[in-house]
Amino acid sequence: MTPERYRKLRAVLDKRQPDLTVLMENVHKPHNLSAILRTADAVGVYEAHAVNPTGGVPTYNETSGGSEKWVYLRVHPDIATAVQHLKERGFLVYAAHLSDEAVDYRAVDYTRPVAVLLGAEKWGVSPEAAALADRHIVIPMMGMVQSLNVSVAAAVILFEAQRQRQAAGLYDRVRLDPETYRRTLFEWGYP
Amino acid sequence: MTPERYRKLRAVLDKRQPDLTVLMENVHKPHNLSAILRTADAVGVYEAHAVNPTGGVPTYNETSGGSEKWVYLRVHPDIATAVQHLKERGFLVYAAHLSDEAVDYRAVDYTRPVAVLLGAEKWGVSPEAAALADRHIVIPMMGMVQSLNVSVAAAVILFEAQRQRQAAGLYDRVRLDPETYRRTLFEWGYP
Ligand SMILES: C[S@@+](CC[C@H](N)C(=O)[O-])C[C@H]1O[C@@H](n2cnc3c(N)ncnc32)[C@H](O)[C@@H]1O
Ligand SMILES: C[S@@+](CC[C@H](N)C(=O)[O-])C[C@H]1O[C@@H](n2cnc3c(N)ncnc32)[C@H](O)[C@@H]1O
Repeated sequence: MTPERYRKLRAVLDKRQPDLTVLMENVHKPHNLSAILRTADAVGVYEAHAVNPTGGVPTYNETSGGSEKWVYLRVHPDIATAVQHLKERGFLVYAAHLSDEAVDYRAVDYTRPVAVLLGAEKWGVSPEAAALADRHIVIPMMGMVQSLNVSVAAAVILFEAQRQRQAAGLYDRVRLDPETYRRTLFEWGYP
Repeated sequence: MTPERYRKLRAVLDKRQPDLTVLMENVHKPHNLSAILRTADAVGVYEAHAVNPTGGVPTYNETSGGSEKWVYLRVHPDIATAVQHLKERGFLVYAAHLSDEAVDYRAVDYTRPVAVLLGAEKWGVSPEAAALADRHIVIPMMGMVQSLNVSVAAAVILFEAQRQRQAAGLYDRVRLDPETYRRTLFEWGYP
């Protein structure tokens, strides 16, 4: 590993946010999954989560920019298991979901441990997932089309989270525990 | 046309922003073009712009959510013509471009007439386009991957524009001139 490469890996790990993540519920198009992971990498997500109904391994495409190497993806068998996994680790689940109880995505706090739940391209967030979520958030729409592309919605919300976390100084100190930091540096450096 | 449909069309036209647009330079993947137009619709873009090197008609896919019906797309033969068209109409061109002179995308003013210039998936904004732009803006990246997917970058910037315009009250009064408003209502209502 060159010294520049080592410095780059450390600079990125220094900003990783173990308490910010996404949970993708049946997002099945490779270009959407890939674009979401690429955005997740950019805002410092350490590990992303997905529920994959077909049971298969999620597939990426070139839209990822290679981010599948830098953001771990944990696949859960169903939404209840995924949410339980996150709640046991202290996460709040904010469902990006156009329901009556949804609040503006800028009105919620992303400096707490947060998982942003995103729904399927066609059907959106399932009723089961919506019921399990702590909050529903919505990006205001002023046009004819009712919803955004899922990877676009993910990005708009994640960059609001990034903005809030930047303002709160959460990128200014190391957030990974020392053991995870060392292990990840090794895995990234010697794949 | 039902009364509800008529009210919906008017509500959307009431918020259309004739002085906010995007200029896509050689964005050639249908799912990216489609996702960008869908976001443009959501923030009130009236007409979008594209430069299409192959000379062909841009193609959409289902990612558009039907937005190609609600956002006009003007295709220019080359980038110089496109920028000239916009500058003659008073637009500033902000290039989303990871150059040395780029400033944070939140540090610029989107309440002025603004066209956000987006580059090609592989090559980014061309040197010619970068030179023609008034400002270069960048979305801060904290991960391993250098850039975002182009439709994601467009959305993050356009929703910052929407936030600024909302705060400035630009969605609270009709911004289209009466003639354009009437013509568009007719075209949308009786396609
Ligand atoms: C294409 S949308 C699904 C649309 C689906 N017909 C529905 O009614 O939910 C896919 C996912 O993107 C996210 N999304 C899209 N637009 C959104 C918005 N304006 N606010 C919040 N989330 C949004 C949601 O997570 C949604 O489940
Ligand atoms: C995939 S990127 C192009 C990457 C290309 N290799 C480059 O170096 O410019 C496609 C377009 O998305 C926009 N974009 C992507 N990430 C961006 C960021 N972090 N800031 C501003 N614009 C970005 C730019 O308009 C860029 O031309």
